[in-house]
Amino acid sequence: MTEASAEHRAPRRIALCVKYAGAGFYGFQRQPGLRTVQEGLELAWAAVSGEKVVMHASGRTDSGVHAWGQVVHFSTWSDLPAQQIRRAINAFLEDDVAVRAAALCDPDFHSNASALGKHYVYLCAHGDTRPVLRKGTVAWHRKEFDLKAMREGAQYLIGRHDFKAFAAAKRSSKTTVRSIHSIHIQPMRGGTAFHFRGGGFLYRQVRNMVGSLWDVGMHKHAPIWLHHVLQSGDRKKAGPTAPAEGLYLWRVFYPSDPFADYRRSAKNRIL
Amino acid sequence: MTEASAEHRAPRRIALCVKYAGAGFYGFQRQPGLRTVQEGLELAWAAVSGEKVVMHASGRTDSGVHAWGQVVHFSTWSDLPAQQIRRAINAFLEDDVAVRAAALCDPDFHSNASALGKHYVYLCAHGDTRPVLRKGTVAWHRKEFDLKAMREGAQYLIGRHDFKAFAAAKRSSKTTVRSIHSIHIQPMRGGTAFHFRGGGFLYRQVRNMVGSLWDVGMHKHAPIWLHHVLQSGDRKKAGPTAPAEGLYLWRVFYPSDPFADYRRSAKNRIL
Repeated sequence: MTEASAEHRAPRRIALCVKYAGAGFYGFQRQPGLRTVQEGLELAWAAVSGEKVVMHASGRTDSGVHAWGQVVHFSTWSDLPAQQIRRAINAFLEDDVAVRAAALCDPDFHSNASALGKHYVYLCAHGDTRPVLRKGTVAWHRKEFDLKAMREGAQYLIGRHDFKAFAAAKRSSKTTVRSIHSIHIQPMRGGTAFHFRGGGFLYRQVRNMVGSLWDVGMHKHAPIWLHHVLQSGDRKKAGPTAPAEGLYLWRVFYPSDPFADYRRSAKNRIL
Repeated sequence: MTEASAEHRAPRRIALCVKYAGAGFYGFQRQPGLRTVQEGLELAWAAVSGEKVVMHASGRTDSGVHAWGQVVHFSTWSDLPAQQIRRAINAFLEDDVAVRAAALCDPDFHSNASALGKHYVYLCAHGDTRPVLRKGTVAWHRKEFDLKAMREGAQYLIGRHDFKAFAAAKRSSKTTVRSIHSIHIQPMRGGTAFHFRGGGFLYRQVRNMVGSLWDVGMHKHAPIWLHHVLQSGDRKKAGPTAPAEGLYLWRVFYPSDPFADYRRSAKNRIL
């Protein structure tokens, strides 16, 4: 490459689709002295390319929260094809985090700012004994829930609302108004799966909604109670926060899916 | 209770159906200074009852090997009903081991000596990236196997044979003749599941058979090769030993199932 072309060259923007098991991390975001997903990815890329980059995620996930489809972007001067970027980074990652797909994307693609919405999944096992073979990757609730009651209650949460009552007390966003597009609650073998799709979620909102749905599913409250909690805007009126170990950032939606090619070729894998 | 009745009283024999995730244990059998399932169960029972007992398993499992249905028996003078024994022991166990069921059984029931056979399951995930969300609980093999070839090869292993070629080199049993009743190899979402049912298995036999089946599934050898390996009685002719993390002791069979009541009431849970 000539100097002239180098002058006109711009860095490339790469998007990564990342999965990780939350148990071994203090969340996504870098924190001094603690093992985080961000640091793992940045160190792996430095080992591959010698570049020090910042890996920007679609949103931070808390300590213990998992991801199946976290989206991360970074800028690089490297010429490595996206497929090789994926393999090279994976070679430097430990066994609880992996890049499922890497893609070259528009220079203005931003994992957080470009996102249209997210899909979260919450998994909860039932039964008399702990789900020891899924330790750290599902929550546990001895008794099965009343699905009908929970589904009825969930209807009150769908739509554009002020979710202040389901926001973590500590953090304040500029606005606590968010849109939930759908909530699906499905029995799975040995447990219950909760699917939340929405334009965006407040800090701890999904875990707080799950905890309140559980209260309805155990008949501690009637379904309409969720409407009253929502209206109250009072976190203290809502149910408990469901544990982190059941929560998965499943997918992030963009106007143009950076991983469309990957999805076309890959099978629908749960592992 | 009077002294006279105490004299005529015999200890009760209790059978436990135990599940555990192998990653955190140095196998089932007690070893000084190492965390084992046996020690965990014995300490839990001591905490419950004050009794020091020996917990006898249907067979030891290696470090890293899981159980969904390990069977353990012990003798006790305690009058605690079986259901309460289960709950009490679980209260003193950590989160990677649990007693699924406890049952009062015949005084001559022996978890190992009474066993008619066993069912082992081996789980292997496929895909370009590690199964990070099933870390330690499945093996990983990038490419999918040729199921047809593996199933054809597996037929040579079924029946009563000298399995010396698939026995661990180190240990010598009195005889290396064993009977395999069935081998089922099934695709599962994102992976392959191997089911082995037989009268008993040699040390490492299942993992050695799985490793050799993989060689057939990857077309490294033709299916008939398994017949030649078996005939040779030579461990060095067989394939590699599949990793411990994919192996589950799924169920132990007895002339009279100690947990028949439990199985009738419980749903078929995978967690």
